[in-house]
Amino acid sequence: MKSWEKIEGHLGTVAGFSGAAVAAGIKKIDGALDLALIFSEAEETTAAGVFTSNRVAAAPVTLSRQNLKSSRGRARAVVVNSGNANACTGAAGRKTAVATARAAAKLLGVRPDLVLIASTGVIGVPLKVERITNQLPALKARLSSENASDVSRAIMTTDTFPKTCALRTTIAGKTVNLAGVAKGAGMIHPRMATMLSFVATDAGVAPAQLARFLRAAVEVSFNRISVDGDTSTNDTVLLLSSGASGARVAWGTKEGAHFLAGLTELCQSLAKMVARDGEGAHKLVTVEVSGARTESDAERIARAIANSPLVKTAIAGADPNWGRILCAAGYSGAKFDPARVDIRVNDLYLCRRGLDARFDEAAAKRELERKELTLRVDLHQGKSEVRMWTCDLTHDYITINASYRT
Amino acid sequence: MKSWEKIEGHLGTVAGFSGAAVAAGIKKIDGALDLALIFSEAEETTAAGVFTSNRVAAAPVTLSRQNLKSSRGRARAVVVNSGNANACTGAAGRKTAVATARAAAKLLGVRPDLVLIASTGVIGVPLKVERITNQLPALKARLSSENASDVSRAIMTTDTFPKTCALRTTIAGKTVNLAGVAKGAGMIHPRMATMLSFVATDAGVAPAQLARFLRAAVEVSFNRISVDGDTSTNDTVLLLSSGASGARVAWGTKEGAHFLAGLTELCQSLAKMVARDGEGAHKLVTVEVSGARTESDAERIARAIANSPLVKTAIAGADPNWGRILCAAGYSGAKFDPARVDIRVNDLYLCRRGLDARFDEAAAKRELERKELTLRVDLHQGKSEVRMWTCDLTHDYITINASYRT
Repeated sequence: MKSWEKIEGHLGTVAGFSGAAVAAGIKKIDGALDLALIFSEAEETTAAGVFTSNRVAAAPVTLSRQNLKSSRGRARAVVVNSGNANACTGAAGRKTAVATARAAAKLLGVRPDLVLIASTGVIGVPLKVERITNQLPALKARLSSENASDVSRAIMTTDTFPKTCALRTTIAGKTVNLAGVAKGAGMIHPRMATMLSFVATDAGVAPAQLARFLRAAVEVSFNRISVDGDTSTNDTVLLLSSGASGARVAWGTKEGAHFLAGLTELCQSLAKMVARDGEGAHKLVTVEVSGARTESDAERIARAIANSPLVKTAIAGADPNWGRILCAAGYSGAKFDPARVDIRVNDLYLCRRGLDARFDEAAAKRELERKELTLRVDLHQGKSEVRMWTCDLTHDYITINASYRT
Repeated sequence: MKSWEKIEGHLGTVAGFSGAAVAAGIKKIDGALDLALIFSEAEETTAAGVFTSNRVAAAPVTLSRQNLKSSRGRARAVVVNSGNANACTGAAGRKTAVATARAAAKLLGVRPDLVLIASTGVIGVPLKVERITNQLPALKARLSSENASDVSRAIMTTDTFPKTCALRTTIAGKTVNLAGVAKGAGMIHPRMATMLSFVATDAGVAPAQLARFLRAAVEVSFNRISVDGDTSTNDTVLLLSSGASGARVAWGTKEGAHFLAGLTELCQSLAKMVARDGEGAHKLVTVEVSGARTESDAERIARAIANSPLVKTAIAGADPNWGRILCAAGYSGAKFDPARVDIRVNDLYLCRRGLDARFDEAAAKRELERKELTLRVDLHQGKSEVRMWTCDLTHDYITINASYRT
């Protein structure tokens, strides 16, 4: 099998998919794209989702979960809006989500449970359903593979750049595409779906297997990033598979492993874009914990470091304060001997065997000033390792979040 | 029994205790107090400690734990320095702590295991023992009840004000005093001892009972504050009881309950000062969660809200973004029905039964602009309640922590 190759492309590049976006006036900014539609022509399209584990789940999350269940893992369309999360909006919010799915289904000539919904934006403010339904005909009229490239912009909130990734390979002689979009910025937390992401493939995958592939890929990508430790009410990752490539893929086969590798690469690329674009972030930080006794220990430590405000402000200030890194590892709950720990920024040792490595301050500062850097923590007590992605914590995070609502 | 009365006083006000502080040159600022001694005259002085649960515990923590065990809950002196945490300093750090205790013990004519040690400051930098031992004679020479008032300043790092509290009551006809100091600022996290605090009483309490009283008081005070969710390597709370008042107090008696009430009040006062003085903080925020099914549920929710950077930046910006509060409750892990939740800032409803309370924006802003405010979350599904204290998250937090080390 040919390895996956990164291509210039977007959701519309994937055979069978089209998309469109319009400005529906949900965002406060005039003319800003804030409503998007993703459509799959193939009747046999399968779908899977990973959603927030937050007990306060927004109406679109509840409805999409329910629709995926009722359709037994099938979907034809995704309607997504930005500017209003339709969260903490009670029965009225639920009605808006249901009416949106119904109106889109009618227009597209599919069953209502084949339409999935996602929203992002301010919490607790009613979302007027007409804002969406009035624009659905225009959205449908604009549907095309080219216009699918607009979706990445329409789902942005405080994101500073649109996030798209597309990969291509050959499976059983057929060209297979994978493409996805994501939006992130604030409220990014691991341990769950994390933000919004929509991924499409023209490989053919049965519903239960699609769900399995998605969970496996999300676990090591979107669940491994952290911006501020907060977890949204709306986190949603959806994967749709049109089968239009003619290639079928099954879990547990060689093709399945190849597909999972591509899906993981795609999800990690998008997840890293989300971390890099964390609110106020200036740096993409990879936290690499190795030499742990168990993967769970490695993950606890990586997560504690990636979530530590003290570590993240030190990185913002290019201060090689490795004590904070070791300290975060210490309160992570993982078991380890601090006296065996090495800590590096990129390849420069800050700490060896739990002690100051007598590093060159200027050199350390230079490493920490890079736009992309890796904190490497080697516990030297086992073989498990885990990688997470996060960003620095800067003044801009405070500025953005001190008055987001108003 | 007379209720506890707040008095102008300090550690030296408590019968049997003296103290002193000097500038030992451990802090970078010339002439800044950075080394303190607390001494108890009474041979029968008992002692108890609550320490960090961080796996990376600093040398002074390890040694003090060990000394309390070896002495079976007795102590005569506490030596504390600021400016250097003596954490992540390996065998050399251990030596420094041991040598400090030994030198102080010799000078004061007590057994080395009756000296407790605490340090706070930068991590991973060797602490030169001579800095401390050279100053011990001067410290001893300055020992007096008046000079004990200097201790609160000597333990400060990024604290903006010294933290002292003193209470007085009468038990069995005897005047009983309780006094304490604390230092906090960054790295304040609940779920453990939290920062440094030293408390003295002239009530007489047996060692095992003293430990029980201290744990009970710390649980609802220092363990209920949060500045940034990070947990230090050095957190230490020590309680010394001289018995010099002549009044004895036992767990499970009426006097014991009275003593615990005073100790809890003292610890909560100090804990609130620590929260108010969180790095960069402008506001003291009380998080009050009521109507929970269990205390553990209430605590999870209060902790999630108190730790949420999004909630805390919203408070900094006086933005009544109650959705973030409900969202934090949602990911806390506690079970509750979001549709029954009320959220108030002080007495103003922001959210009723999970929905926007249609509050007056200007009024909400006014409430959030107060220097002290309470976020009240009523779950309406049980009778348990918990209170925590935190602060807002501001630009100054970033400024302070982006270059703390350098």
